[in-house]
Amino acid sequence: MEKIGNQTIKFNSPPTILNTASIVGPKESQGPLSKYFDKCLEDEFWGEETWEKAESKIIKETVNTVISKSGIPTNDIDYCFAGDLLNQCISSSFGLRELNIPFLGLFGACSTFVEGMIMASIFAESNAGNNCLCAASSHFCSAEKQFRFPLELGNQRPPTSQWTVTGAGAAIISKTGVGPFITHATVGKIVDMGIKDSNNMGAAMAPAALDTLITHFKDTGRNPSYYDAIITGDLGHIGKEILIELAQTKGYNIKSNYNDCGVLIFDKNSQDTHSGGSGCACCGSVFSGYLFNQLKDKKLKKILLIATGALTNATTAQQGESIPGIAHAVSIEI
Amino acid sequence: MEKIGNQTIKFNSPPTILNTASIVGPKESQGPLSKYFDKCLEDEFWGEETWEKAESKIIKETVNTVISKSGIPTNDIDYCFAGDLLNQCISSSFGLRELNIPFLGLFGACSTFVEGMIMASIFAESNAGNNCLCAASSHFCSAEKQFRFPLELGNQRPPTSQWTVTGAGAAIISKTGVGPFITHATVGKIVDMGIKDSNNMGAAMAPAALDTLITHFKDTGRNPSYYDAIITGDLGHIGKEILIELAQTKGYNIKSNYNDCGVLIFDKNSQDTHSGGSGCACCGSVFSGYLFNQLKDKKLKKILLIATGALTNATTAQQGESIPGIAHAVSIEI
Repeated sequence: MEKIGNQTIKFNSPPTILNTASIVGPKESQGPLSKYFDKCLEDEFWGEETWEKAESKIIKETVNTVISKSGIPTNDIDYCFAGDLLNQCISSSFGLRELNIPFLGLFGACSTFVEGMIMASIFAESNAGNNCLCAASSHFCSAEKQFRFPLELGNQRPPTSQWTVTGAGAAIISKTGVGPFITHATVGKIVDMGIKDSNNMGAAMAPAALDTLITHFKDTGRNPSYYDAIITGDLGHIGKEILIELAQTKGYNIKSNYNDCGVLIFDKNSQDTHSGGSGCACCGSVFSGYLFNQLKDKKLKKILLIATGALTNATTAQQGESIPGIAHAVSIEI
Repeated sequence: MEKIGNQTIKFNSPPTILNTASIVGPKESQGPLSKYFDKCLEDEFWGEETWEKAESKIIKETVNTVISKSGIPTNDIDYCFAGDLLNQCISSSFGLRELNIPFLGLFGACSTFVEGMIMASIFAESNAGNNCLCAASSHFCSAEKQFRFPLELGNQRPPTSQWTVTGAGAAIISKTGVGPFITHATVGKIVDMGIKDSNNMGAAMAPAALDTLITHFKDTGRNPSYYDAIITGDLGHIGKEILIELAQTKGYNIKSNYNDCGVLIFDKNSQDTHSGGSGCACCGSVFSGYLFNQLKDKKLKKILLIATGALTNATTAQQGESIPGIAHAVSIEI
């Protein structure tokens, strides 16, 4: 591999995305992408006593599913990169504690899935290992409880708020294979434009998405039309519109081929999810379910996947802090 | 690089630890390693209004110090790997949001510093970048507040409890240089032996340290006497004794050259720190302060640094869960 421009890695022997898996909750199962997920749950508990344990079970079973689909023996998977939104990333560490694969925990908030894909690609191309697994999860109930209000309170949610996706996505990235290939990775910087409204994460993260998007184009010499689709992780409806406008001011027109996983996963008119989906599982499940399928079917041949994260917590919100954002991108091509 | 054995990466062009920096709090400043730290704080707030903001300032200034000591322009640092113990790793993301270096957030609990060293080494050797920064922080007050009880409550602490180190460590790892070199990395698996006492983290993490230690010896063909020193991150006095005993049962005698950062950083007799130090900054500051100095002075020529982490949180403790542990190791040689 080599570094090109300021923040981009070009893979000279691009690693392959061998397979993916996704499991989602009941709300996501009623959305427009339902048929692309490996498993759709009927309730938020999946037989567990708490939402946290349910989230752990979701990431565990998603990882088991991708390993099973890939046909690779667990012993031949060299590393697992995983993370989630819960305090101290307990969904990943408890869900994957019996996995018996060397484990490297990540925290990139909702950008974690693509952060894992970048790590996995670098480890695979560099000979640190042949097969690397990456996974990320989130859960509407555990996230609301932790970041906002107890669900039992029945708080109203403003129109800018997003709906944390219940689910998980997982992918196995291998040194060799037939693609789809990860050809480039652009690692994002932390960008904080002073947004303080934790019910408007799309606005807080859009400037970070812009920074990574523009940097990717400058580093690679590409422009928006190079890609069949540019997909952000969880800017939602409001963040998506902001990004389109911001990109336009920088001279990049992304309107015709840009969308967001948080916009794709729910039906805005019928599902009462306000500004759309969010959470680590938003990008994770939409990529592992829908987008990977489109790449395998050659309906999409070149995509730029930009996962976005809000690096905040409940304490910083109470202490009046703004919300730093980050965005990491990978080019995926067949 | 190449993978050897089950979990170890051997660097064929070993990356160099260019420089390190450490800043610690008042308790650590009164301990036996005081003279090795770049800055010793007089109080836990450092002029900030909250412990969280103080911790952010500590990691920020530690990173600024290592950059300044290294002489490398910030623009030439390709990636920053960082993490901490606070919910959603806010110490790192808020402390480093103005750094303007591509940022990859990690969560390995108290193993984060060595996890960062491993990532930095792989990125540097693989040409993803030339200079990589890794950093980790913790803070006694913010950690007690978050994981145990409000400090104002004045709770008694049992003899098995450890004292979270207030401070941060940072290192710049570069593709080329004169050493000390990172020659091997052993990535740990999650190990959970069912310990549930969150006031006995040393016991919870010792089995993970054992697993990584034994795996490292098997993968590399080395034995304990190869190293001048084997140093764990934060097992403390109790965990240290457990690891010595466990290693003995597996046929490895580490008694003569093994120690723990949590044992080294405080004086057991005079400082009332019970089982010793803990936290991301325990391994981070003891390595970046004391151990790096010993390597530069050639008083130590070959060390095995094994950072240990407890992948738990306050909710899982309340839900009756056990404490999964993890340990990551790097061989550092001059």
